[in-house]
Amino acid sequence: MAEIAAAVEFARKNEARFVEELKALLRIPSVSTLPEHAGDVRRAAEFVAAELKRIGMENVRLIETASVEHPGGHPLVYADWLRAGAAAPTVLCYGHYDVQPAEPLDEWKSPPFEPTERNGNLYARGAVDDKGQMWMHVKALESLFAACNGRLPVNVRVIVEGEEEVGGEGIAQFVRKHGDQLRADVALVSDTEMFAPEMPTLCVGLRGMIYTEIEVRGARTDLHSGMYGGAAPNPFVALAQIIAKLKDPEGKILIPGFYDKVEKPTADELKAWKALPFDEEHYRRTEVGSKELTGEPGYSVLERTWARPTLDVHGMPGGFIGAGAKTVIPARALAKVSMRLVPDMTPAESFAKYKAYVESIVPKGVEVEVRMIHSGDPIVVSTDNQFVKASTGAMREVFGKDTVYVRGGGSIPIVGDFVRELKIPTVMMGFGLPDDNLHAPNEKFNLANFHRGIESIVRFFGNVGA
Amino acid sequence: MAEIAAAVEFARKNEARFVEELKALLRIPSVSTLPEHAGDVRRAAEFVAAELKRIGMENVRLIETASVEHPGGHPLVYADWLRAGAAAPTVLCYGHYDVQPAEPLDEWKSPPFEPTERNGNLYARGAVDDKGQMWMHVKALESLFAACNGRLPVNVRVIVEGEEEVGGEGIAQFVRKHGDQLRADVALVSDTEMFAPEMPTLCVGLRGMIYTEIEVRGARTDLHSGMYGGAAPNPFVALAQIIAKLKDPEGKILIPGFYDKVEKPTADELKAWKALPFDEEHYRRTEVGSKELTGEPGYSVLERTWARPTLDVHGMPGGFIGAGAKTVIPARALAKVSMRLVPDMTPAESFAKYKAYVESIVPKGVEVEVRMIHSGDPIVVSTDNQFVKASTGAMREVFGKDTVYVRGGGSIPIVGDFVRELKIPTVMMGFGLPDDNLHAPNEKFNLANFHRGIESIVRFFGNVGA
Repeated sequence: MAEIAAAVEFARKNEARFVEELKALLRIPSVSTLPEHAGDVRRAAEFVAAELKRIGMENVRLIETASVEHPGGHPLVYADWLRAGAAAPTVLCYGHYDVQPAEPLDEWKSPPFEPTERNGNLYARGAVDDKGQMWMHVKALESLFAACNGRLPVNVRVIVEGEEEVGGEGIAQFVRKHGDQLRADVALVSDTEMFAPEMPTLCVGLRGMIYTEIEVRGARTDLHSGMYGGAAPNPFVALAQIIAKLKDPEGKILIPGFYDKVEKPTADELKAWKALPFDEEHYRRTEVGSKELTGEPGYSVLERTWARPTLDVHGMPGGFIGAGAKTVIPARALAKVSMRLVPDMTPAESFAKYKAYVESIVPKGVEVEVRMIHSGDPIVVSTDNQFVKASTGAMREVFGKDTVYVRGGGSIPIVGDFVRELKIPTVMMGFGLPDDNLHAPNEKFNLANFHRGIESIVRFFGNVGA
Repeated sequence: MAEIAAAVEFARKNEARFVEELKALLRIPSVSTLPEHAGDVRRAAEFVAAELKRIGMENVRLIETASVEHPGGHPLVYADWLRAGAAAPTVLCYGHYDVQPAEPLDEWKSPPFEPTERNGNLYARGAVDDKGQMWMHVKALESLFAACNGRLPVNVRVIVEGEEEVGGEGIAQFVRKHGDQLRADVALVSDTEMFAPEMPTLCVGLRGMIYTEIEVRGARTDLHSGMYGGAAPNPFVALAQIIAKLKDPEGKILIPGFYDKVEKPTADELKAWKALPFDEEHYRRTEVGSKELTGEPGYSVLERTWARPTLDVHGMPGGFIGAGAKTVIPARALAKVSMRLVPDMTPAESFAKYKAYVESIVPKGVEVEVRMIHSGDPIVVSTDNQFVKASTGAMREVFGKDTVYVRGGGSIPIVGDFVRELKIPTVMMGFGLPDDNLHAPNEKFNLANFHRGIESIVRFFGNVGA
């Protein structure tokens, strides 16, 4: 335990350097969904690999994921240190170095790829999701190497992917084909958030998702609405008619059979959620900022965002979107539509029901194509194992409080693959905050949490290896 | 009449030069709706003014329209030649030198602002709408000046605007305030098309329009659909629900009272339309290219596009429109929605009904703003006057055929102002063709029609002055 205390001490002494290194990583615009950023994505992978090598990890390498079936795949970063002995457990650290697009740029108070400190927070795209949280793993490992004479208290494998924000197909294929190369006893994932400031949190459930496009085609070419309005089909009107039939005005999804496989949370879980300090009106006012909240009647906000499927429209490309007026009837229009899934829904079955329903409500005059862009399974993980105890113990030492168990509304597709393919539990120990603006302008990471996260992870490794 | 024959001869000898000059004008990307093209719009105005001066027009000048109430207004080009004597009629030639945006650029076979001849057509944005047709006026006047020793058979005023594609507010204000400066006996407008090739056509009715934006705001900032999906309102879903209630599935507009003022075409007009060579299936296949046509049941295509109001959505800006996936619940989304109006609807009353209706169907959780971008009155003009006879006589000489009377589905807002403010009839003698791709990629002007248009206008001036 003296070594753990020394590692914590090392981390505290190096706080400023850790932040500067993170800033350098955040300056790389590794937006995985945009082909023009493919070079930046690779640069971020190389940056992470170089640092893993420098701190003492072994077998550091990039694993290419691009293939005929997966063109444009971004590399995985792999590293391990397996000298703790066969009796010691093996921890698989997972994170991702890719980020969401930064648009709309004009809503950022400081540029998204120029990390800026304000009021104890570090603002940048990827600050918390997930470069900052992934960096906590790297810096915890560095601190342990420094305090333990170049050794670690457990065996460690690190896998960092560059496609989490676009569905994680590359790592999913790797896990399925080469799962033996990631053999471990537990996965550690820091890509979630704390329920509230000062409240150590483990995430024990994640929604899955299907991200789709509906393309509607009407006339062969764009037409003038003066000349053809009243005769030519309008793809945006058709899309609106389709979308309006996907959800009822209250927010219930109208796709037949969509809720068939939805499993209710346990009575214990529901009881624990009710005990969490959560005020819907405060949440509406401070986090969402809308006039009213929406969603399925009869469920609390936590149930609606953690344990119920949802459907959202993210954008509707096509036609004229400039300032002013253009009187075009566009030949085609798209809608980007995603659905969040919960246990025991599956992406394949949910997509099939959705596609069949959309195809059954195609308005007159247009043709429709429904495409899957990517998907991920929903999961719920068990809390009854030594690794969860190692984590809650570590956070009790750092925060002086018991851990709360929550679910997350978002998706980390790989966690499902860890459960299914590697047969290992995942500890989702995240240090984001609810107001960190994930996927939105002015994403940030609270720097106190960055440092407490590093200390918690150091202590977690210590507890697992004890 | 020898002079008219000489003017026709002059025009024929100079065909190639006329086309080259038009190409130079078409190379100027005078897109009036895009602020970044304001300099190009002015260059186009100066180009037209310089040519009017060169051919012999007098008092040539740019009239600025920008003001506090109309910021960003583009200049009018004015010229006159009033030496034909007080007994001779005065013709007011109207055209516009601005053009629609060229997007989507990747659908153009040759660049929109690099005019290209293919198969007897000239391809460019603005080729027919309206630079090419406006240029017919200029070239007809040049031919008459050349054949008549620097004189014209009638008094002529020319007014060319640069805001037709954005609602024509500048010229409308000028006509209202300074109508005396445009005093004339008739307006000549060439901004319409022939019903079919080889079929001389006068347009005697135009739909009006209101072009609007609906802005929907939900959350204060963009949110992550994983975390907030199920609780935060989605502006695109709300917009879709609104749009789906604007028209029924068949195409009938559901705004209460919207059809109240719609005036039926006369029995004679309907009979004449039925006699036109128009095949709906051929039109669907060759012009629209959609699976089916849409629109109000119980009306023919010509009635639906000429004599019935319509509603179209042109684009839905907001959210994520890049390739791939971004899981954002956007804070706001817009829809660009326009309605075409017919006599005796008015823009103000129609907008008021539309706005009140949209505000009455706002979905839960969002706030809505409905804005008017621009508008124009619908009109029907009389065919019973000497100017119409001068036009049909001119076209009979050129085409060897009687003229058909049609309406246009589009809007030329200034024609309504000519009727109301100047109390003069308008002759809408246009030489476009139905497949000219107005407002769409690959806009073109048939060059044979360009030259026959110039000859028809030369002969029209001759007939008016006879």
